[in-house]
Amino acid sequence: MRNIKLTVEYDGTNYAGWQCQKSKIKTVQETIEKAIQRILQDKIKIIGSGRTDAGVHAQAQIANFKTDSSIPLEKLQKALNAVLPDDIAITKVEEVGLDFHSRFSAKSKVYRYTILNRASRPALLKDRVYFLPHPLNLKLMQKEAKALLGRHNFQSFQAQDKKEKDSIRTIKNLKISRNRDFIYIDIEADGFLYNMVRNIVGALIEIGRGRFPEGSLRKILESRNRKLAGPTVPARGLSLIKVNY
Amino acid sequence: MRNIKLTVEYDGTNYAGWQCQKSKIKTVQETIEKAIQRILQDKIKIIGSGRTDAGVHAQAQIANFKTDSSIPLEKLQKALNAVLPDDIAITKVEEVGLDFHSRFSAKSKVYRYTILNRASRPALLKDRVYFLPHPLNLKLMQKEAKALLGRHNFQSFQAQDKKEKDSIRTIKNLKISRNRDFIYIDIEADGFLYNMVRNIVGALIEIGRGRFPEGSLRKILESRNRKLAGPTVPARGLSLIKVNY
Repeated sequence: MRNIKLTVEYDGTNYAGWQCQKSKIKTVQETIEKAIQRILQDKIKIIGSGRTDAGVHAQAQIANFKTDSSIPLEKLQKALNAVLPDDIAITKVEEVGLDFHSRFSAKSKVYRYTILNRASRPALLKDRVYFLPHPLNLKLMQKEAKALLGRHNFQSFQAQDKKEKDSIRTIKNLKISRNRDFIYIDIEADGFLYNMVRNIVGALIEIGRGRFPEGSLRKILESRNRKLAGPTVPARGLSLIKVNY
Repeated sequence: MRNIKLTVEYDGTNYAGWQCQKSKIKTVQETIEKAIQRILQDKIKIIGSGRTDAGVHAQAQIANFKTDSSIPLEKLQKALNAVLPDDIAITKVEEVGLDFHSRFSAKSKVYRYTILNRASRPALLKDRVYFLPHPLNLKLMQKEAKALLGRHNFQSFQAQDKKEKDSIRTIKNLKISRNRDFIYIDIEADGFLYNMVRNIVGALIEIGRGRFPEGSLRKILESRNRKLAGPTVPARGLSLIKVNY
């Protein structure tokens, strides 16, 4: 028995996310499982590091599966990339210890949210960015964001319809930077609740636009009330950048 | 009479280029002209800084047109971006002197060619990069590229089926850089022959792969023989970055 670890890049635009309850919609996980089945002639379930929502992208999602096949790693990677649709690519294939579990072994994950902040809508990266023409006060956003660092109950930033029992998570890093017209919000945490990044970014944007007063992010966090935290920003600006083990 | 200058961003994937002889294929120029016509109720021809081939992108193509309309610039930009398809965006609208001509007034243009240089094919930027899994000797490419700097007859790098009378051009800058898996080849010249960037990049790749010996780029240039210069790389990796006036 071998344990195979896959690093997966995907454009989430045409998928119902990594994994989905409703079985009729195409997901990234299913698509990869079908490709493995075709190559190894064996029905296999892969384990992802976590779900990504519909329309969310990944530069480096991690998944693993166990197999008795002795196929060489390089051959498996080439075969997968030949069989998979062109919006999913396997960028790395490794053999790992049998105790490696993509989800449970993960120490932290890093998501990046990208805002295109200029007067006119995008043509080149329209499925990768959230277009926002309003000026944003980045310094204030950076200052306010500090309230989220560390171990907190993130119930205020959790999707209302998909609550988890335990909404305590630890944000290890939160960086807001600008490169020309692009604003990047990078968040590293030990785990994420449903829509947590998109809800945090929604609140940060309200702050950056001056629609939430200074000090409000801490208050929203402490309120544990989703209704106070502002809108959920669109999925297309979000990308899973890295999973740390 | 006013002279209006447009800065245009486009994803060239679904277009037959900026302008095209065969009138039945959709071009970027026509698409913009139709949008202007719809807004200004006037049949207008726009002048581009130059043609881009089918599948080539632009971060900042320049075009201009003359009109008697007194429409405010901001209103025109908003209306254009509302009417244009989502793979074309007008990022700037300015009023310029009546003698401004997008093509004849241009001092130089900058193109960027992007190579994805890693083992596995892309999923996220598949329409924006040329995927090349082979190792490339960047230092050798940089050294060889120096032969192209300055004023030369670039006949060796000109498309065989679309020759221009005068194939003398001046390359002002040629920079080859790497950022992680991406290799960027940026070329600034006073003008470009058909396929010139894509043919230069094709030759540079042959050098980087060790398939052309050292000193060969100068020999190819001096030979004025297209057949010696290697393959034409795909359009999807090419983007018009800037037009200098």
